[in-house]
Amino acid sequence: MTILAAIKGWNVEQWTARLAAKLPGRPIVIPGEPYDRRAVHYAVAWKAPPGSFSGLPNLEAIFSLGAGVDHLLGDPKLPDVPILRVVDPDLTNRMSEYVVLHCLKILRQQMRYVRQQGERVWDDDDNQPAARSVRVGMLGLGVLGQDAARKLQVMGFDVAGWSRGPKAVDGLPSFAGEDGLKAFLARTDILVSLLPLTDGTRGVINRSLLDGLARDGRVGGPHLINAGRGGLQVEADVLACLDAGTLASATLDVFETEPLPQDSPLWAHPRVTVTPHNAAMSEPEAVISLIAQQILRYEAGHPLEHVVDRATGY
Amino acid sequence: MTILAAIKGWNVEQWTARLAAKLPGRPIVIPGEPYDRRAVHYAVAWKAPPGSFSGLPNLEAIFSLGAGVDHLLGDPKLPDVPILRVVDPDLTNRMSEYVVLHCLKILRQQMRYVRQQGERVWDDDDNQPAARSVRVGMLGLGVLGQDAARKLQVMGFDVAGWSRGPKAVDGLPSFAGEDGLKAFLARTDILVSLLPLTDGTRGVINRSLLDGLARDGRVGGPHLINAGRGGLQVEADVLACLDAGTLASATLDVFETEPLPQDSPLWAHPRVTVTPHNAAMSEPEAVISLIAQQILRYEAGHPLEHVVDRATGY
Repeated sequence: MTILAAIKGWNVEQWTARLAAKLPGRPIVIPGEPYDRRAVHYAVAWKAPPGSFSGLPNLEAIFSLGAGVDHLLGDPKLPDVPILRVVDPDLTNRMSEYVVLHCLKILRQQMRYVRQQGERVWDDDDNQPAARSVRVGMLGLGVLGQDAARKLQVMGFDVAGWSRGPKAVDGLPSFAGEDGLKAFLARTDILVSLLPLTDGTRGVINRSLLDGLARDGRVGGPHLINAGRGGLQVEADVLACLDAGTLASATLDVFETEPLPQDSPLWAHPRVTVTPHNAAMSEPEAVISLIAQQILRYEAGHPLEHVVDRATGY
Repeated sequence: MTILAAIKGWNVEQWTARLAAKLPGRPIVIPGEPYDRRAVHYAVAWKAPPGSFSGLPNLEAIFSLGAGVDHLLGDPKLPDVPILRVVDPDLTNRMSEYVVLHCLKILRQQMRYVRQQGERVWDDDDNQPAARSVRVGMLGLGVLGQDAARKLQVMGFDVAGWSRGPKAVDGLPSFAGEDGLKAFLARTDILVSLLPLTDGTRGVINRSLLDGLARDGRVGGPHLINAGRGGLQVEADVLACLDAGTLASATLDVFETEPLPQDSPLWAHPRVTVTPHNAAMSEPEAVISLIAQQILRYEAGHPLEHVVDRATGY
């Protein structure tokens, strides 16, 4: 019942130590070291290279260490075993921290005041809108989108949501599908993307979508916050819209290529905020606890939870 | 029934125009122009010079245009008429926007990521605490403090409050008086000051208080957010604590002298955020509506609301 820890970009030793602590006595192996491939029954995965999970004849399940599973589903050699997402309340809260922080940053013009401080300028804005005058549009109404929407409402924002299929969320005006997209965008001053990356959503944040955002808002033009996946956005289009004035700012936690290449014009754009894909980092302790519980429950005869639907990609 | 508009630092013409719109036909006068002092029955006031309200024999009430009234109570020639505060839900929401924004900014190390972006550095923090691991202490539990505390709790922060006298707020651990201050400070990672400025609170944010803040928190030392009044803080002590490392950062909307003097070391301190006393600007339309309603109600025989207690100063 060996566990393969195929983790890229994070501290592998820390993750395997946590796994060992929660599942004592169980062998844990990592790619690149010799191990018996037939002994591997489970894998925990984060951005492992394609093919990492092939040739494991007894593999029973692959656990993603994050909420997204696109890093797995893009693997053409992915074996036909259940892929499991992490549904961690802690991760949900962290994503909402990020979304509320950056919506408030836009609302309250914080980057303006940072610049003014640098220039020793004391100048307020006697036409500062209140949150209730600013319309946030939540693109994606999964667990993350719903939690962020609710917290933005508590802060006073005028929030609506969009999802692929119709979704009723208490107290949240919502739009659905291609038919609802235009009206959703037309009432959106701050667009927050928390969509999963699937074949259907790749490149969805493009010029055509951004051109549809509201032009009659109180925050100096429409703003974009993408904390979903970099593959959702066409960065050339985001930059073109920023420079054309059709987009007032972009706050991006995710990028087409990560880490963001040194020569990307996004780094130095005066109306772009770059964060290093850490809007909602998994808390290792919590994630490993959830995975260990799933393995123990499964071995006791219970079904696996949060299995990904490969057809929709989430 | 003339109204005197004694307003300094804001656009007087805009304010008098709004008053005229809400109370049509009523004379509105401003200091420095000739007017019949016996005709003045009401004054609306913001930071008018001391003595602005003396020699008005028929004055019946003075309305502050903001939540604070310290700009009035410091006037030794203030006549013995009711002083009225604005209690405006819109202003309360705006203050909470500011407090939640800056608590999240500290929690999520946003200034670090702004610096990193400037240096094209992609570096996350794999030990980022969640809001629930960070203790906010609300100094002052009036209308503003209670609303901010509740919204910080929704975001997940571990919030407690302190007030001069015991105050029970649903679901909020609270401390009171001199006796409770030490324990309150010892469990506080982010101190948020929303106290009124009175004889009892002047200079309360000093070295001795800041030295009492928690040293065992998850956010790199204690942080200060003062959005109350500048007179609450001893700026020399705040700077000394920042430089001694006993204070990790200060976010200040208010200052001993406003506008903040050009030579203040606060402007350029790398761990200070300066905003130009606009955490919660009154929305002119809302404030003037509330004052006009009060005047009309009063003239119809109803008592004035939100009268300041001159003994406590709020």
